[in-house]
Amino acid sequence: MIIILKSDAKDQQVEALKQEMESQGFAIHESAGINTKLLGLIGDTSKVDVDHVMANDIVETVQRIQEPYKKANRKFHPNDTAVDISGVKIGGGNFQVIAGPCSIETKEQMTEVAQQVKESGAGFLRGGAFKPRTSPYAFQGLHDEGLKLLLEAKKATGLPVVTEIMDASHLHLFEDVDLIQVGTRNMQNFELLKELGKIDKPVLLKRGMACTIDEWLMSAEYIMAGGNENVILCERGIRTYETAVRNTLDLSAIPMIKKKSHLPVIVDPSHATGIRFMVEPMALAAIAAGADGLMVEVHNNPAKALCDGPQSLTPKGFDQMMKKVTKTRDFFQNL
Amino acid sequence: MIIILKSDAKDQQVEALKQEMESQGFAIHESAGINTKLLGLIGDTSKVDVDHVMANDIVETVQRIQEPYKKANRKFHPNDTAVDISGVKIGGGNFQVIAGPCSIETKEQMTEVAQQVKESGAGFLRGGAFKPRTSPYAFQGLHDEGLKLLLEAKKATGLPVVTEIMDASHLHLFEDVDLIQVGTRNMQNFELLKELGKIDKPVLLKRGMACTIDEWLMSAEYIMAGGNENVILCERGIRTYETAVRNTLDLSAIPMIKKKSHLPVIVDPSHATGIRFMVEPMALAAIAAGADGLMVEVHNNPAKALCDGPQSLTPKGFDQMMKKVTKTRDFFQNL
Amino acid sequence: MIIILKSDAKDQQVEALKQEMESQGFAIHESAGINTKLLGLIGDTSKVDVDHVMANDIVETVQRIQEPYKKANRKFHPNDTAVDISGVKIGGGNFQVIAGPCSIETKEQMTEVAQQVKESGAGFLRGGAFKPRTSPYAFQGLHDEGLKLLLEAKKATGLPVVTEIMDASHLHLFEDVDLIQVGTRNMQNFELLKELGKIDKPVLLKRGMACTIDEWLMSAEYIMAGGNENVILCERGIRTYETAVRNTLDLSAIPMIKKKSHLPVIVDPSHATGIRFMVEPMALAAIAAGADGLMVEVHNNPAKALCDGPQSLTPKGFDQMMKKVTKTRDFFQNL
Amino acid sequence: MIIILKSDAKDQQVEALKQEMESQGFAIHESAGINTKLLGLIGDTSKVDVDHVMANDIVETVQRIQEPYKKANRKFHPNDTAVDISGVKIGGGNFQVIAGPCSIETKEQMTEVAQQVKESGAGFLRGGAFKPRTSPYAFQGLHDEGLKLLLEAKKATGLPVVTEIMDASHLHLFEDVDLIQVGTRNMQNFELLKELGKIDKPVLLKRGMACTIDEWLMSAEYIMAGGNENVILCERGIRTYETAVRNTLDLSAIPMIKKKSHLPVIVDPSHATGIRFMVEPMALAAIAAGADGLMVEVHNNPAKALCDGPQSLTPKGFDQMMKKVTKTRDFFQNL
Repeated sequence: MIIILKSDAKDQQVEALKQEMESQGFAIHESAGINTKLLGLIGDTSKVDVDHVMANDIVETVQRIQEPYKKANRKFHPNDTAVDISGVKIGGGNFQVIAGPCSIETKEQMTEVAQQVKESGAGFLRGGAFKPRTSPYAFQGLHDEGLKLLLEAKKATGLPVVTEIMDASHLHLFEDVDLIQVGTRNMQNFELLKELGKIDKPVLLKRGMACTIDEWLMSAEYIMAGGNENVILCERGIRTYETAVRNTLDLSAIPMIKKKSHLPVIVDPSHATGIRFMVEPMALAAIAAGADGLMVEVHNNPAKALCDGPQSLTPKGFDQMMKKVTKTRDFFQNL
Repeated sequence: MIIILKSDAKDQQVEALKQEMESQGFAIHESAGINTKLLGLIGDTSKVDVDHVMANDIVETVQRIQEPYKKANRKFHPNDTAVDISGVKIGGGNFQVIAGPCSIETKEQMTEVAQQVKESGAGFLRGGAFKPRTSPYAFQGLHDEGLKLLLEAKKATGLPVVTEIMDASHLHLFEDVDLIQVGTRNMQNFELLKELGKIDKPVLLKRGMACTIDEWLMSAEYIMAGGNENVILCERGIRTYETAVRNTLDLSAIPMIKKKSHLPVIVDPSHATGIRFMVEPMALAAIAAGADGLMVEVHNNPAKALCDGPQSLTPKGFDQMMKKVTKTRDFFQNL
Repeated sequence: MIIILKSDAKDQQVEALKQEMESQGFAIHESAGINTKLLGLIGDTSKVDVDHVMANDIVETVQRIQEPYKKANRKFHPNDTAVDISGVKIGGGNFQVIAGPCSIETKEQMTEVAQQVKESGAGFLRGGAFKPRTSPYAFQGLHDEGLKLLLEAKKATGLPVVTEIMDASHLHLFEDVDLIQVGTRNMQNFELLKELGKIDKPVLLKRGMACTIDEWLMSAEYIMAGGNENVILCERGIRTYETAVRNTLDLSAIPMIKKKSHLPVIVDPSHATGIRFMVEPMALAAIAAGADGLMVEVHNNPAKALCDGPQSLTPKGFDQMMKKVTKTRDFFQNL
Repeated sequence: MIIILKSDAKDQQVEALKQEMESQGFAIHESAGINTKLLGLIGDTSKVDVDHVMANDIVETVQRIQEPYKKANRKFHPNDTAVDISGVKIGGGNFQVIAGPCSIETKEQMTEVAQQVKESGAGFLRGGAFKPRTSPYAFQGLHDEGLKLLLEAKKATGLPVVTEIMDASHLHLFEDVDLIQVGTRNMQNFELLKELGKIDKPVLLKRGMACTIDEWLMSAEYIMAGGNENVILCERGIRTYETAVRNTLDLSAIPMIKKKSHLPVIVDPSHATGIRFMVEPMALAAIAAGADGLMVEVHNNPAKALCDGPQSLTPKGFDQMMKKVTKTRDFFQNL
């Protein structure tokens, strides 16, 4: 970490700042230009709060050299991590497709969709029981009743299941869930992240819709710092000025995450685009960019879906896409 | 609500959609151009889920005429709402300044700052006990110990207090807090909003850092729909591409909120800009734009603040600003 | 186009608006709900100015049904357009890679790079003679001297060339250029677009860095409306809040453009990401998403490049990427 | 400028980079931490191209200490600049309001509006003869015929006039124009900026709709570097994800510009918001934030305006606003 001092910083003030830093265990390397004086901090600065340093009146700016995340950082874990979810792996060369309806509605719907996506090659079943909706008047999910239907479909098909948690107080209901999803609006719900750090169940951490890649990794770090290192990242589009799509899918996040972190990263083209015809091209592009998996919405009757119908594939559409997904994944593995 | 149909929609499909809508209690007004057929829904459409309608294959797009919020909507509550917080009002002509440190650190700090901001004219004391920090390694607040210090400062000064809640499970600790703040990262933590809808304590709802004005009002609606209509909105800057400031303070949100809603709206220039010298000009501009109050960070020793030092005013700086704030408020009331 | 009237619009005002619209040749279809009255305009509304209609005090909002672009619109030109550039086609099943340095520097550089990218399979040579630089003190390009070097490299290799125009007054210098590029900062330089509409040379229209897909198509329409229908679009990343990459490459723009328009669209992964290691994965992802071509920066000595070195590939790196690009393109064509 | 080297940089490579920098006239100050080596460049680095340095494989990142703008930089020109426009000053304590229609339409319109805004206290008349429109089918302005009408209105009222230039080739038509406006879409039309640098007529430089404050100052620097230091900046809203307003007015840009630069900065609340009722509150907020002037659209019949009617004030509305503007300006000058 380099602290760049203001040109009018007085010796006494500089001395005080140096002493403060030294008292925190850092060695200081001082360097002076004509108009600028620098202090280089030598030591583990990952836990230094930049804002705290910048609050000092004599500090012009601070340049971080070391990333503020450690457990999620590829520098300290050079090999790809493969997360094991009830025996099925994601990452480290293992590619998986998670499929299912946005929200769990009926037993028939879940059983039907589960069977169909399994036949098409999905490795996981998804379905929302707790639904974060912009409007308090919109369908909020079936809650524990929904989880029950999801677990029945799991039993019927053998597919491990993924579903979203919205509050730490619901954790006891997720015991038989295989992969717990944290939604985009909760990526920085730090109390929830801390609770998920205390368990050993894998967590699927969706990117906050206006969060940077570094903030995303810091949220993963929250979970990992608590002791749960089974984190899978999920890119799902970011908020931009463009209105032709629901969100702008940021596929460049994939190679960037791969550079910065060892964690697996999958892509959700359904929520990113919000439009059915865009799901397939974006799914294939995600594979090309290096994604470790996909999460896709499939509904047996999209027009009657209680949530996110416009972006849901039919089981038939999903089956057609999966044929291409499988070939594409094979192609890129051998490229 | 107007449903615009695709030009190739078949009569049978249109009929089915009409029946679905009629079964929900809407009257339908049909209208046809050369290439376009429209269905106008007549009735209370505030609870209709646009996505659900758009999932129908024959629907080109949907145009909402009626806003999806009712309790927060000025159309149904033409007069400004004044929220009463332990006897002090905000909104409906009542202007208040909330001041204090970003985070509660020590008894001395709280007592000192509380006394000073009171003398300068602040109507409320703020201080964070639960701190949402990007990094798990940063200072997370003193929690219940912090709340205790805050309440001691309340007792010593008589100032009502404002502090942030991060999880519904902490609600029991907030009994003596006068105004509960929901932070920017929790604006769409719907489980928290629902819990806050069940109590009658006033809530200060900060705008999500990448949320639209309509989403913000929908989050207010969550609290109000639960029965708690004591909601105050707080604009605190939005995320844009600009990096010279921490966030871009959106002062145009104030007249827009005033047009759309009857709820009070205050402005936090400290978090918006993140830079000390910008707090005062933005505070005065907020008053000019019609804000019902301000929330300002004040620390007795910003360089030693455990959080957000770079944007904190000293008590002396705050006192100077308050003189201008008072005059400016008077000026605009009489303009 | 649907005009939604305010609920308090007076009959006389509505009548006046209807007459104004009828005088412009539109038939009017009127429709009334309980709180809303609508006017549907029947006729070719692509040239109606929405703002003009919204300026009327009785208008609540306007919903466009018909897109404002005609010549660029797939509805009126259902088949993909293939643009012929000096005998080489882009679009309509024809895929091409444009490669070369960001800026033209020396004869040796151009000849060397041109020869190498040709051998690796590039179909076009690029190189900037007029460089739009944020700083007036940065290298601005070699201008006509640069164009001369570019044309020499064209002669030596037979590769058609692409280079950027910054002002219509330079057009006479571009006579032997095969494809004229309009850069991101000039996408809405309408005077330049109008001049390019008067010639018959193909134009490569880069997306404005904060422009919507519809604005981009409207800029293409400017050129096409003038009579020059040889327009190729180029996605090059958009400005977002993310700072880890230079811009956010919007690959979802490709299927969306393909839906809305018949024009070819290529992708520039070099400018989008600004970082060398991201060029290849984003290039492959662009092919997967359906791009008609790529534009890639290649420099014989990136560390000495006068411009954009950090994102330039070496000829060797480009050659390695091209082997994958060719295979990937083949794969997707047969998928 | 601080160059932070990669930890694996070899001595020989570092030596080569140092020599390159020294050959450009910089003294080098070297500094080494445990994992990091830094090179501090001592000398005038305002003209160093950061990208060029970053292209070097051994460079991790570059931190600029010195701003890349010099003539626009307050550090080198501590006093506010007042720009003299035909005898009327803006900046340095001089506040002016520019008013008039978005586009020049008829002689009657211009004469009427000009007379009325003058009576209400406007110091300048605005009106567009060359109009940058998203659609090629929208009204493009009356061009030289429009300029003639503008100059007639100038003659009739004595008000100096402001109008937009869209291409350097039109410059000869602007001889009698007092202040030449560069629109948001041309803020980075560098060829135009260079031409404006060669004349001595004042230039009103609107902020690019997705440009940073530093890019804006660099565009001012383009004009100033050419020799024309008569630049006035105009904030007109930036592009964000929010759709309730046309653009998000960034009032925090005002104190930030005042910190970074000595140039005057005015605000255009009409284009920023795009909505009539928001013009007045945002105008007053701009004054509170420290703006040196305003630019406001006024039309004698907004509903019939050929452009931007929804945001235009009537002369009566403008007159009412001006009474408040004058009082507000007086208030803040004496605060």
